[in-house]
Amino acid sequence: MDNNLLSKARDLINANYISTTLSTVDREYNVNIAVITILEMVDDDTIICARFGADKTYANLQETGKGVFLVLLTSDNRTKDGIRVYVELQDDQQEGHYFERIKERLEHTAYASFPLKNCLVFKIVKILPVSLLKK
Amino acid sequence: MDNNLLSKARDLINANYISTTLSTVDREYNVNIAVITILEMVDDDTIICARFGADKTYANLQETGKGVFLVLLTSDNRTKDGIRVYVELQDDQQEGHYFERIKERLEHTAYASFPLKNCLVFKIVKILPVSLLKK
Repeated sequence: MDNNLLSKARDLINANYISTTLSTVDREYNVNIAVITILEMVDDDTIICARFGADKTYANLQETGKGVFLVLLTSDNRTKDGIRVYVELQDDQQEGHYFERIKERLEHTAYASFPLKNCLVFKIVKILPVSLLKK
Repeated sequence: MDNNLLSKARDLINANYISTTLSTVDREYNVNIAVITILEMVDDDTIICARFGADKTYANLQETGKGVFLVLLTSDNRTKDGIRVYVELQDDQQEGHYFERIKERLEHTAYASFPLKNCLVFKIVKILPVSLLKK
């Protein structure tokens, strides 16, 4: 995978911006999107993610296992920057190293009062910039 | 449909915020997301949308026809507001009243130099707030 995109993905994912979303889909092609912010890109292939709400997202991942994260930055409301990270669900953990790691991250956020239900482990399958549009 | 959500959807969709996205999916459940900003909610059931790039989004819509728009506002980078509008592709026009209407809108934006390829006509099937999370 392109090193610049990997590095940008790591920076933007790990910043846990409030504008981070995860889009998923159920078996009947109903697409959903949810703001999902407590996550960490732990290596070039792996993102771990705290699941405490997001019931539809979680159900979709159990059905089809595929999704895409978007971190979108529009600081001046006129220009956009960010990254798209395409993922597949690899594991769903209720204990263990990754669970404890994302739990500690969650505890330092505005969502600390929500009990962690799952640590979702995603395999990164593709990274793209926000736009492929060419003049 | 809930009148408050309808009114909020109309305001946020028609503002054409740069943080507006459309998530779609292909037949193999590969989810995509794209920044899609030139659109208009023309009545309580209908959104029209300018398509000039977004090749993967367009291909996905031709395959499965379903998607969700998100307008996400995170003005202070700490709190979020916005709307999720779930849609199905109803028509794909290269001429006519809606095509001319969205073409005129496009011509007054930063994307004016891109020729309009399609006017996508969506039926609104559901509207949700950004989060359903309860304390």
